[in-house]
Amino acid sequence: MKEQRRSILKKIFTSAAGVVGLGVVANAKSDAAPEKEVFNVVKDDQDVPLFSGSTKFGNLVFVAGKGAHFDGDITAHTLHVLDELEKELVKAGSSMKKVLKVSVFLHDLNDYKAMNEAYKGKFGDKPPVRTTVAVYGGVPGDSLVEMDCIAYI
Amino acid sequence: MKEQRRSILKKIFTSAAGVVGLGVVANAKSDAAPEKEVFNVVKDDQDVPLFSGSTKFGNLVFVAGKGAHFDGDITAHTLHVLDELEKELVKAGSSMKKVLKVSVFLHDLNDYKAMNEAYKGKFGDKPPVRTTVAVYGGVPGDSLVEMDCIAYI
Amino acid sequence: MKEQRRSILKKIFTSAAGVVGLGVVANAKSDAAPEKEVFNVVKDDQDVPLFSGSTKFGNLVFVAGKGAHFDGDITAHTLHVLDELEKELVKAGSSMKKVLKVSVFLHDLNDYKAMNEAYKGKFGDKPPVRTTVAVYGGVPGDSLVEMDCIAYI
Repeated sequence: MKEQRRSILKKIFTSAAGVVGLGVVANAKSDAAPEKEVFNVVKDDQDVPLFSGSTKFGNLVFVAGKGAHFDGDITAHTLHVLDELEKELVKAGSSMKKVLKVSVFLHDLNDYKAMNEAYKGKFGDKPPVRTTVAVYGGVPGDSLVEMDCIAYI
Repeated sequence: MKEQRRSILKKIFTSAAGVVGLGVVANAKSDAAPEKEVFNVVKDDQDVPLFSGSTKFGNLVFVAGKGAHFDGDITAHTLHVLDELEKELVKAGSSMKKVLKVSVFLHDLNDYKAMNEAYKGKFGDKPPVRTTVAVYGGVPGDSLVEMDCIAYI
Repeated sequence: MKEQRRSILKKIFTSAAGVVGLGVVANAKSDAAPEKEVFNVVKDDQDVPLFSGSTKFGNLVFVAGKGAHFDGDITAHTLHVLDELEKELVKAGSSMKKVLKVSVFLHDLNDYKAMNEAYKGKFGDKPPVRTTVAVYGGVPGDSLVEMDCIAYI
């Protein structure tokens, strides 16, 4: 059943990934009320905006949920997802040390300990808060873990 | 099993919906430290506050998780939920274009693609970040999808 | 099956709990760009920072996901989790009345109504927004409910 689920997910995600595009949109105006900036906008095949890789408003940065869409164990997937978060953070002018809050969605709660091993220490001496739950087949794209975060610049 | 789950959920939610009331509470003071404002407070049948439809603090707006509590497919439910989010945003002085972050909880990950089709383009050219997972029976009130968001004014 | 899952979770969490340490780190500088403050840092047995109990940035406070790791029903677990949130809020200089957003992850959606009964009224007359889903075995540490929050000071 779990295998079947994951196969279905892989199909869905592959399909979705096929319509992904990248773009950078917009800059905040400094002479007026603050506006959001967005980075790495994902669009569908008709160029319709779907979501952004990150959004910035004032000195806050919001990063999209990231997964690992390749064959690998929880360690590899966790490290990849953290790397994806870091890329977005740097692009938006933030860093891993400036993360305030992380949400972690595991495919399987049995991966909790191994996720922790790969996760610890990655955000410096003043780590963000974290909320972790498992969703048993609910992470898109066959990823063993999905994470998003809120940070500052 | 899934059907059974959804029947139970429908019962729970119907029960909960029976005790819902609406109200608008509070305004921020402009001459002191910022205070939160809240909109569309949901109370129980003894008038005890449960949660708000949105909260506003400074120029940030937080919108409660919204579901679709009627018979319908993922397209209808997604469109309804987005409409509910928009109502809250407008009431709080924000808009779909000012959303920074969306969280999406699907009932079934197989609805991912159809959710995307209904979702895309609804937040303008600079879309919010998004995190999507499925919770397989975990969305209250028999809804196929629940979404919340963080925005600005 | 559910029982089996919960037994596994208990083992995982007990193991994780064994490496938990507490610490308070850092103060914001008032004469420069705002920095985050963190409280109740959880570290592993080699003193590597894992996550914080709360983070503070400007006048925003982020509290980590809290669970109830003892035998008890949803009422006891909900009250405990709310109490844990309150402790973090007070430590960071905030309070239950200053919470803007709560995320609730139930072990079982059948606990929705009883969770509400224990939850209502705990945040004052201007309650935070709330997003609730169930994750059926996905809450770490055998807790029937996990909650996090965003607040202000």
